[in-house]
Amino acid sequence: MSEEEGDDEEDLEAVLADVRARIEPDDEERRRLRAVADRLTERAADAATDLCDDADVLQVGSTARDTWISGDRDIDVFVRFPPDLERETLERYGLEVGHVTLPEGHEEYAEHPYVKGTVEGFDVDVVPCFRLESATEIRSAVDRTPFHTEYLQRRLDDDLASDVRLAKQFLKGIGAYGSDLRTRGFSGYLTELLVLEYGGFRELLAAAGDWQLPVELDPEDHGQETFDDPLVVIDPTDPERNVAAVCAPENVARLQHYARTFLAEPRLEVFEPDEPEPLTENEFKEHLERRGTTPVAIRFDAPDLVEDQLYPQLRKSLDGITTGLDDRGFDVFRATAFADDTAVILAELAVAERPAVERHDGPPIHVRSHAEGFYEAYAGDPDAYGPFIDGDRYVTERPREFTTARAFLESDRLFDVGLGAHVETALAAAYEVLVGDEIAALCGEFGWELRRYFEPRP
Amino acid sequence: MSEEEGDDEEDLEAVLADVRARIEPDDEERRRLRAVADRLTERAADAATDLCDDADVLQVGSTARDTWISGDRDIDVFVRFPPDLERETLERYGLEVGHVTLPEGHEEYAEHPYVKGTVEGFDVDVVPCFRLESATEIRSAVDRTPFHTEYLQRRLDDDLASDVRLAKQFLKGIGAYGSDLRTRGFSGYLTELLVLEYGGFRELLAAAGDWQLPVELDPEDHGQETFDDPLVVIDPTDPERNVAAVCAPENVARLQHYARTFLAEPRLEVFEPDEPEPLTENEFKEHLERRGTTPVAIRFDAPDLVEDQLYPQLRKSLDGITTGLDDRGFDVFRATAFADDTAVILAELAVAERPAVERHDGPPIHVRSHAEGFYEAYAGDPDAYGPFIDGDRYVTERPREFTTARAFLESDRLFDVGLGAHVETALAAAYEVLVGDEIAALCGEFGWELRRYFEPRP
Repeated sequence: MSEEEGDDEEDLEAVLADVRARIEPDDEERRRLRAVADRLTERAADAATDLCDDADVLQVGSTARDTWISGDRDIDVFVRFPPDLERETLERYGLEVGHVTLPEGHEEYAEHPYVKGTVEGFDVDVVPCFRLESATEIRSAVDRTPFHTEYLQRRLDDDLASDVRLAKQFLKGIGAYGSDLRTRGFSGYLTELLVLEYGGFRELLAAAGDWQLPVELDPEDHGQETFDDPLVVIDPTDPERNVAAVCAPENVARLQHYARTFLAEPRLEVFEPDEPEPLTENEFKEHLERRGTTPVAIRFDAPDLVEDQLYPQLRKSLDGITTGLDDRGFDVFRATAFADDTAVILAELAVAERPAVERHDGPPIHVRSHAEGFYEAYAGDPDAYGPFIDGDRYVTERPREFTTARAFLESDRLFDVGLGAHVETALAAAYEVLVGDEIAALCGEFGWELRRYFEPRP
Repeated sequence: MSEEEGDDEEDLEAVLADVRARIEPDDEERRRLRAVADRLTERAADAATDLCDDADVLQVGSTARDTWISGDRDIDVFVRFPPDLERETLERYGLEVGHVTLPEGHEEYAEHPYVKGTVEGFDVDVVPCFRLESATEIRSAVDRTPFHTEYLQRRLDDDLASDVRLAKQFLKGIGAYGSDLRTRGFSGYLTELLVLEYGGFRELLAAAGDWQLPVELDPEDHGQETFDDPLVVIDPTDPERNVAAVCAPENVARLQHYARTFLAEPRLEVFEPDEPEPLTENEFKEHLERRGTTPVAIRFDAPDLVEDQLYPQLRKSLDGITTGLDDRGFDVFRATAFADDTAVILAELAVAERPAVERHDGPPIHVRSHAEGFYEAYAGDPDAYGPFIDGDRYVTERPREFTTARAFLESDRLFDVGLGAHVETALAAAYEVLVGDEIAALCGEFGWELRRYFEPRP
């Protein structure tokens, strides 16, 4: 090892040690979590077996696997019932156990209804599921969770668990952590499998930097299906499932980019999520002037949906509106969507105005019946130029429906594009179109998102 | 026949009779032409046989075939020499015969040098060629002409010759007559073959209106090659040649269009070439306002070339400049080129300005060496936005080279596009860029062309 490489090595280890010190729970934190988790598990088990002899209870998730990051406060208690139970009965039992375990809790709904509550500062979910022989038999996604926990608990030693923490914090820092449909990044389970597969955090980074996509990992060597995703990690507990299915290409690329740059030059900041200052209205205007583009935005009341439902609808609507603008000659340069109480679909246009006429190609003149129909339709039209001949076709130039992007966005034709169902309903109620400098007004609610948009990083 | 069809029939015959009366040479005109042609032919034959025993002389072209239109004043005298003569000798003999035949004539150059002159108001060419066994052996295009004349003289009776005149005048009226490279229309020979093939003018129109392209006609049923052209007429004197090769798709389409509309509603005006009033500057500005486009024009001294050389170069330059504009985001809506003493390339733009930035897609991030090179090249660039990630690629947004079409046209990059060689030389010497209203100044020299552009007809 050269002296320089030795220095690099020291830099890297120093940064990792620093990060570990920040994210590793100390003994006191572990003890407190263990005490609460054990008490709740016991309480849930008593309640469950009162209802059903065959029920059992187990802790799942990162706090069960000792891969949680200091400060995370999620305790997941799963109540398992035998698979011959009716689904309705399972749900009723599950809620009953939940309310006994968390007397102050409230009901929420995911795959099944479940009870959520706070105990001594911890966020606790009590979730019912079926106890199955194998993960391939599951009836809903929650049934799979116990298999994941069991698989990892058996394989992650303390060193690997510590490296899982580094990997999670790294992915959080670069904005690629979480399998929710807003982020579409790396789930906790996926992160743990990757660290396990490569034998550590640094090893994962080294491998990811070299990935030539698509990459397929199959820890149990039992996969049979083929997947279209750039990253495929066959679930060790279910050969038919790609654990990385939700992971967007951007986030795979992001991991590759930061893996390379971090190993080349280790910096603590990569582990710290980007929390920029909101963009000011003046900065917004400076960017517009420098770019010479015309942004247009649609602002409306955000549909009342959880993020996992809202963001796919926003993305679909963004696609539809982008296509609608492009199709009418308003070239979209870049676009994004974001939401808080209000939702915004923002398209930055390279071309925001078109001429008053548009070209309309008719049929080839030698296709007689079509050609004659076209000619007769437009020959007397005082608003049309032509028909004239270009190549072997008739052409007319006719008034264009929309000469500005604003006119299109403010028209009913906006509803002809593909929109998410709830977004469509929200727009039908009311929306506002903002163009150019008017969009600076969004800096108040969305200054953070706008800085990210105008100062993009990998 | 219904009464209405009978009326239509009468209308059509009345119009054709009217046209025939205008274009048919009368006895006096025929007599005068015959007298001059015979005298010149005799004079040329004497001179030719003085030089070469085996030489002979014949009249070719429409005046020889009695298919000329009253007022046409071209007499073509071909002097044929035996094929074993050296080319240089043929050219020397040809000029000698020419000068004896036309003592006031001057030399011009086409396939061979030849002598041109005026005799009693007729434009006379005396052209040398080789006398060959068959048209497939020809050494230059002029050698073919005698074969064409011989073929047609044997087959065109007076009625067909009269219909050839109608067909020629019709094609002149619709702007599709002439195989010169400005018009790229129907040559006289092609027109005569088509009338002969269909058996008359009306029959030609009826057939052309129904053509489903490509159409291939082969009067002697001896063609072997395949051609890519929309209209293929195998030369009866040369199975390897498409007589309609030069005919542009626009002109085939034009014949089809006017054949249909004329048969549906016979009008004398179709036979009259369009000679519109020049567009005024005010009308120009009204069109611009109505269209909302931005025309840009390059004006330069027209290269000193015959039209058959100039127009192909103008078209090539128009294509190159149109592509150059489109490639830089300046959407060309329609474009044209014209020339007189000055030449103009005119492109009407739907988009004449672009933003200050342009998107630059980098390599996929998983192609490591390319991706790292791209990232390093732009990561520190203060003028670039990004690199950021879109899909699986790096993207940067960088200053655009040209934000206006004018800036591009006024830059040296104009010379990167495909230009005709002489046009390139002319532009290198000097050119002027006109934008929008400035182009109204062209109404003086090109008012006719601009009206045609802004009031296009089939």
